[in-house]
Parts: sequence; structure tokens; C-alpha cells
Amino acid sequence: MNDYSIINGKFVLKKEAKILISDLSVQRGYGIFDYFRTVSFQPIFLEDHLDRLFYSARQMNLEAHFCREELKEMIFKLTEKNQIPDSGIRITLTGGYSEDGYSIAKPNLLITQSSFSFNKENFNKGTRLITYQHQRQLPHVKTIDYLMAIHLQSFLKEKNADDLLYFDNNEIRECPRSNFFAVTERGEVITPAKDILRGITRKKILEFSEFNTKEASVHENDLSTIKEAFITSTTKNILPVLEINGRPVGNGRPGQITQMIYEKILLLKENPQSN
Amino acid sequence: MNDYSIINGKFVLKKEAKILISDLSVQRGYGIFDYFRTVSFQPIFLEDHLDRLFYSARQMNLEAHFCREELKEMIFKLTEKNQIPDSGIRITLTGGYSEDGYSIAKPNLLITQSSFSFNKENFNKGTRLITYQHQRQLPHVKTIDYLMAIHLQSFLKEKNADDLLYFDNNEIRECPRSNFFAVTERGEVITPAKDILRGITRKKILEFSEFNTKEASVHENDLSTIKEAFITSTTKNILPVLEINGRPVGNGRPGQITQMIYEKILLLKENPQSN
Repeated sequence: MNDYSIINGKFVLKKEAKILISDLSVQRGYGIFDYFRTVSFQPIFLEDHLDRLFYSARQMNLEAHFCREELKEMIFKLTEKNQIPDSGIRITLTGGYSEDGYSIAKPNLLITQSSFSFNKENFNKGTRLITYQHQRQLPHVKTIDYLMAIHLQSFLKEKNADDLLYFDNNEIRECPRSNFFAVTERGEVITPAKDILRGITRKKILEFSEFNTKEASVHENDLSTIKEAFITSTTKNILPVLEINGRPVGNGRPGQITQMIYEKILLLKENPQSN
Repeated sequence: MNDYSIINGKFVLKKEAKILISDLSVQRGYGIFDYFRTVSFQPIFLEDHLDRLFYSARQMNLEAHFCREELKEMIFKLTEKNQIPDSGIRITLTGGYSEDGYSIAKPNLLITQSSFSFNKENFNKGTRLITYQHQRQLPHVKTIDYLMAIHLQSFLKEKNADDLLYFDNNEIRECPRSNFFAVTERGEVITPAKDILRGITRKKILEFSEFNTKEASVHENDLSTIKEAFITSTTKNILPVLEINGRPVGNGRPGQITQMIYEKILLLKENPQSN
């Protein structure tokens, strides 16, 4: 197993992977990224992640100086070189080396790979959320802006919770790094659609035809009546929400519908050869 | 004139001033900074800027591994080495090299200096603003988050304006890099106090006892009745606002009270020895 990254098309050892501090990410927090996994060397939902990466770049006026095929070639070469079968690969596009520290320049393209294997044991532990009034900036774009989420880590600890559940105008939005789903009393599996990041795992679940899944508003008041809840992300797959604001969701254990969707997602995402 | 920066206490040539891409500024847009000027080698309002820098660091749970005196010593050494009499000095504290790409680590301290002289000719040109609904995250903290401001640069061009004037809940807040002042029909010089960054030039103007200056809400609707307006910042000093949303402010030229406050600020900030 090796430990290389790629900066603007060139291999560099991870411990030497540097950029100038004039980059607009360092100066102004300006950049976008995407993150996908490899399981047994196979990229998972790569095309979806690249679709979103190029969308994010366009929205942020970051001119990609590479085409999709060139990017895929770089990813392929990196996985060949590093030989990490189960991994997370992050592609970052920054605002570039800005002359005046404010104007967008030629973006820097950073590709890093880290070992990552999905841990099935997390499912039963689940997660405890705490609601917080916040609307992410440019919610559809996967920017590097996690200012509030990281600032609030100490608040989470204080409250003895695992993650934030953002809401705005009394409507649930999302967690800082995952989407939120609720199972209603009528057995509908709903997920907010407005002003959120459209996660790839979320998208796949919405495509499951055998469950009654759909996009719908989740009001703050609805949280007391939902039967099950879970969050979804590339690394978490599905994590049952056992508690919101210190109150149990349903019976406080992973729900049946959550379990069924979880098993279906595992079939789709976790290559059985690697288990 | 030399061109050195300081990273974590060590001199580096600006063109070689780099940090690892695992830094939380690059990964998650997490960091704070402050910026002050030197005029004829004299730092302007240094103590105010350092007060704010340490305040920002505390708010963001960034543990400064240096005391105020050590920081001042570094700044002094940098100005000695670079020999740039009129400059801007930026001190940045980032989230550090995070192991998991999310948790705050030991902050990286970056100090850079660039040549800067105040240009008096900008005063008569003034500036044209366009209002935009936005509330900065953690407004009292000088974070590196300029996501919206930079994203909206193309919008500004389209609208033929120079800068954004943020408002929220019908109340004027500030511009992305400067504070806003309005002169009312009654000759009061008012500046919003709620959910803004407390600028150092703004602070000095509020201390001018011979003008009727005070903190007060400025409602969006008030913009049509104000007699004069100006914005303030470390680099701009005072820039008259000649137009808001395409409509002239007052008679569309720099106002008398604006001019008087401007001259007073120049006396305070621009060391006559350098002129």
C-alpha cells in the first residue's frame, strides 16, 4: 500500500502534498470537492459523483482545466499506484493562486486517497442528533464550507449528541455531512428536498421502487410523531437515528424499514468480494 | 524590498510559502485571520487588530500556540526583513493538519506582507452597491469564509455594481469586506450594530465625538431617504457610496459629512511622514 496524492496531474507523496498559501481555499475558504469510495478497487457510483463535481465547479465559477475522461484517468492511475482496495477518494478543486487574494484564479486540482472500509457494527449503535437552526450557504453545491459544523463540535459534546440536524423556517434540512430520512406513521419514507445537498446515497434510496420513498418537507413538529429515522452518506451508508434532542425516535432502536433499506443499500454498494 | 512570509515562526520566501493540503482551511474552509497596515513602517491600530485576532481564535476553538508578545515579535521581524514601508500584513490561523479531515488540530500560523499604499484618488470615484439578502455565518468572527462574496462576483459584474451590501430581515448589515455608514436626514451618522463584523476603522469613527455618530439599525426602506453613505475598511479607509441599486445616494456625489470624517480618519491613519 502506497500513499500518493495527485496535485494538478502530478503524483506527490501525501506527506509532501502542499499548495501555496495564496490559494483561495486558504485565503477565503473558496473551493468545492466530492468524495467517493472504492470497494475491492471498484469506484462506487463514480459517474454520479463526477456529475456533481462538475456541477459544483460550474456553480462556483471554477473552470476545470481537465475533461471528465482525463479526471477518470488520473483516478485510475492513483488507485493503480496506491494499491488500496477499500478506500475513500476525495477530489478537491480550489479557487487557485489568486493574485489579489479575492479573485478566482486557475483552480488547483487535488486528489487524495485514504484507506476506508465500511464498518457494519455502527448500524446497531446508530446516532443521536440535535436540531440546530442553520441554512447552509449554496446548499446544492458541495463546497468546502463546514464552518458552522466544525465550530459546533464543542456544542455537540456538551449536549452529548453525535451530530447536528440543521433546520430553517421550521423545516428540517440535513446533517452537515449526511441527508436525513424519516419514516412516517403511514409508512412513507420521506426526505427533505429543499435547500439541501443532494447526496448520492440519498438518490439511490429514492430510486428504490419497493419502498414508499419520496421527497417531502419534514417539519420540526413532525419529529415527535415519526416512527423511524436514518441518515445517509457515502461513508455511513445508512445510520439509524435513535434519538433527536434527547428523545427516542420510535422505540429508540433501529427500525424495520430502516433495516430493510440498509440491507438493500449494502447489496448495491458493498462489493461482496471484499467481505 | 524582500518577499518573505512566516509560517509557524519560520521565514519562507512567499513563492515557496506552502502548507499541506490536509489543513482544515483547504479541507473544510476553517480558519480565521486579521489584516492591518503599516505606514512608514508603523503598524496602524495593531493592538485593536490583535485583540480581534485572539477573539476570533477563541470563538473558533483555535488554540493559539503563541502569546501576544511572541506574535508582535514575529511581525516586527518580518517587517525588518522585508523592508516594505507601506504594506498590508495578514495573519491567518487555520484549523491545522487534521488527521480525520474534520477535527480541529494544532493551528497553522501564516503571516504574509504585501506592498500597499492608500490611494486618495479612489475617494472621488466612490462606490456603487447592490443590496443582497445574506447573513454572514458567525458575523462577529473574522473567519476566512467569503464563499458568497466571491461566488457573487459575476452577479456584481452583471449588475454593473462594485460591491454587495448584505441585508437580512430587512436590516442592512455590511459589505463583504467593509462596514456601512449612513448619514440620516437629521445629520446622524449611523452604522448597523447587529450581526456584523466590528471593523477597526468603524470603531475609530464611532469614537469621533464631534460627529453625531452612533450604532443604529438601518432598514432597507431607509436607504431611499439617507443623505450620504460611506463604507469603511482597513484598506479603503472611507469610500463614499454614490449609488445603491442603481439609484443615487443624496446628490450622487461624496457628501460633506463623509468628506469631513474622511479627512479626520486620514489624519489618524495615514502617517504624514510617508506622504
